[in-house]
Amino acid sequence: MSIETKNIIVEKVKNSKIDQVDFDNLAFGSVFTDHMLVCTYKNGVWETPAIVPYQPITLDPSSKIFHYGQSIFEGMKAYKDDNGDVFLFRPLDNFKRLNISAERMCIPAIPQEYFMEGLITLLNLDKAFIPTQEGSSLYIRPFMFASGNGFHASPASEYKFIIACAPSGSYFSGKVKVLIEEKYSRSANGGVGYAKAGGNYAGQFYPTQLAIDKGYNQVIWTDDTNHEFIEEAGAMNIFIRINDTLMTAPTSDRILDGITRKSILEIAKDQGIKTEVRKISVKEVVEAAKDGSLKEMFGAGTAAVISPISGFGYRDTDYELPELQQSYGARLKKIITDIQYNKSEDKFGWRYKVEN
Amino acid sequence: MSIETKNIIVEKVKNSKIDQVDFDNLAFGSVFTDHMLVCTYKNGVWETPAIVPYQPITLDPSSKIFHYGQSIFEGMKAYKDDNGDVFLFRPLDNFKRLNISAERMCIPAIPQEYFMEGLITLLNLDKAFIPTQEGSSLYIRPFMFASGNGFHASPASEYKFIIACAPSGSYFSGKVKVLIEEKYSRSANGGVGYAKAGGNYAGQFYPTQLAIDKGYNQVIWTDDTNHEFIEEAGAMNIFIRINDTLMTAPTSDRILDGITRKSILEIAKDQGIKTEVRKISVKEVVEAAKDGSLKEMFGAGTAAVISPISGFGYRDTDYELPELQQSYGARLKKIITDIQYNKSEDKFGWRYKVEN
Repeated sequence: MSIETKNIIVEKVKNSKIDQVDFDNLAFGSVFTDHMLVCTYKNGVWETPAIVPYQPITLDPSSKIFHYGQSIFEGMKAYKDDNGDVFLFRPLDNFKRLNISAERMCIPAIPQEYFMEGLITLLNLDKAFIPTQEGSSLYIRPFMFASGNGFHASPASEYKFIIACAPSGSYFSGKVKVLIEEKYSRSANGGVGYAKAGGNYAGQFYPTQLAIDKGYNQVIWTDDTNHEFIEEAGAMNIFIRINDTLMTAPTSDRILDGITRKSILEIAKDQGIKTEVRKISVKEVVEAAKDGSLKEMFGAGTAAVISPISGFGYRDTDYELPELQQSYGARLKKIITDIQYNKSEDKFGWRYKVEN
Repeated sequence: MSIETKNIIVEKVKNSKIDQVDFDNLAFGSVFTDHMLVCTYKNGVWETPAIVPYQPITLDPSSKIFHYGQSIFEGMKAYKDDNGDVFLFRPLDNFKRLNISAERMCIPAIPQEYFMEGLITLLNLDKAFIPTQEGSSLYIRPFMFASGNGFHASPASEYKFIIACAPSGSYFSGKVKVLIEEKYSRSANGGVGYAKAGGNYAGQFYPTQLAIDKGYNQVIWTDDTNHEFIEEAGAMNIFIRINDTLMTAPTSDRILDGITRKSILEIAKDQGIKTEVRKISVKEVVEAAKDGSLKEMFGAGTAAVISPISGFGYRDTDYELPELQQSYGARLKKIITDIQYNKSEDKFGWRYKVEN
């Protein structure tokens, strides 16, 4: 059964697998909805996108995705309110960032109408998969990769743009303990750290595993030159509160321009919280931990939302953070999630209603 | 038809596609042999490898290769001599480096017997595809990637190790003109530059495309801190001859430990050529070009063999290299390829005969 909308071909599943989803026990990104959007770039153009049943992808062994890491992605979420209405959060920012990543990785830009119309059509089809349980949402994964063939180390001539969705629970369970890294690095000056490129993530796995083996959950990356300044945590940007000032590192070619990060900065300003976007040295954070002026740290990202940090390790010493009654993290998380789940007014204009 | 060798399951093609290969007009890595080796890592072990007809790979859309760039590869070549005997060049060095890359990218190590026995069985099956035309060889691509599923940014639980082969002509046609890069970088201190990780290659495509648009073929990467020192060219290590001294940069966590690179260093020493392995500043190369002491530059790598460089660009100025009668590059290339193609004695013990 094929229905053609303005730009999208739709082939619906015969039998939904929604009955197999245990919505009360959702892990992160491990069960998927009935459909996915697939769009192919070939002969210099993006072909008409198609929504098809969620299904395997078949590629030649010489396909460049296997060899040269030419892949990028985005992370988004869809939220359902008590009326069953569906919302996205700043989706055009994800669209724009996807194409910024695409340019850096030599992947052709996806047209806005294919991205947005594809996403909305897909969400309407798979609306029943959007969970309403506290802390749950539909995690949306738009991604692009080199599907063209050949062992020559050069950009592919064919690409796939796909959107797949996974009803998901929390990314982290509980508070996160982090290790400030001094040996390994996430990205180079003039590198691809600001892009959501696949290789940025695989490169973090080994140092992260070493940190996990020592009892931490995540690594906080520092600059690769002297490991002097806090950068980001790979799966999230990092916020640090010293006394009453909330700080985060400036974006650069090494740091992802996080959508949650910039939203938090705006909400904090609106709330009258003093914010600073500046280079934050490891030294000042350690000193603030020692003298008690370090009040809290949290990570911010689409998957992680706002993840409180319980403490950090640095040079074989662990620093615990206090339990605050009035934490910025908890306050900002409530404001941002209330906007996302349509539980409050959205004075910023970030909420995006998905029309039927 | 399945034949079981000691460790390898073999399923032969019904009809060879060798008649479709135009051996007199081989591009690099774009046509493939009849078979490939596939080995799956699952439940904590590498399963018995299988040689199967060259065929597509089918993966779930959430397979981590599409999202997190967890992939590595090697490049090797097989050569056939006038008697029809088949040779490899230092294959155990590729095997070892693959597992060094694997460790950095959190991919489980492949056992040596699976790699070597798999490779030899495959080469014997597809021996007829090894070209004998001048400058041609069978390019061998062992690669490993995350085939396990899920959107959580963490190492996969399943992997594939595959060897595919492509009868290939030269990687570069003619001399190469390079651009010394000052804005973009290939790798970070403490990063993954020494690994043959997929993402290291995709990150180079955009700056390389900018260089190609300006009339160059390749970028020479410099350190990401100050862009002061020559590192490598992405698809090859770089050798620089000033007066009669042949120099290359030391390997580091940013630079690939090239097998051609280290072989050339040994051959050059054996030939009485003065070699230096040390940091080479862009400044001294530019000054040597200006005063005429820069005699030659060439790239070295398995795919590129020894690729002479005709000149380089730096800060909007082009520097031409002289045409030498007695170039080190040509001399070393003849020695190394004579060893590889079994045309000379192999005093170094690098040639590896593939037994039937």
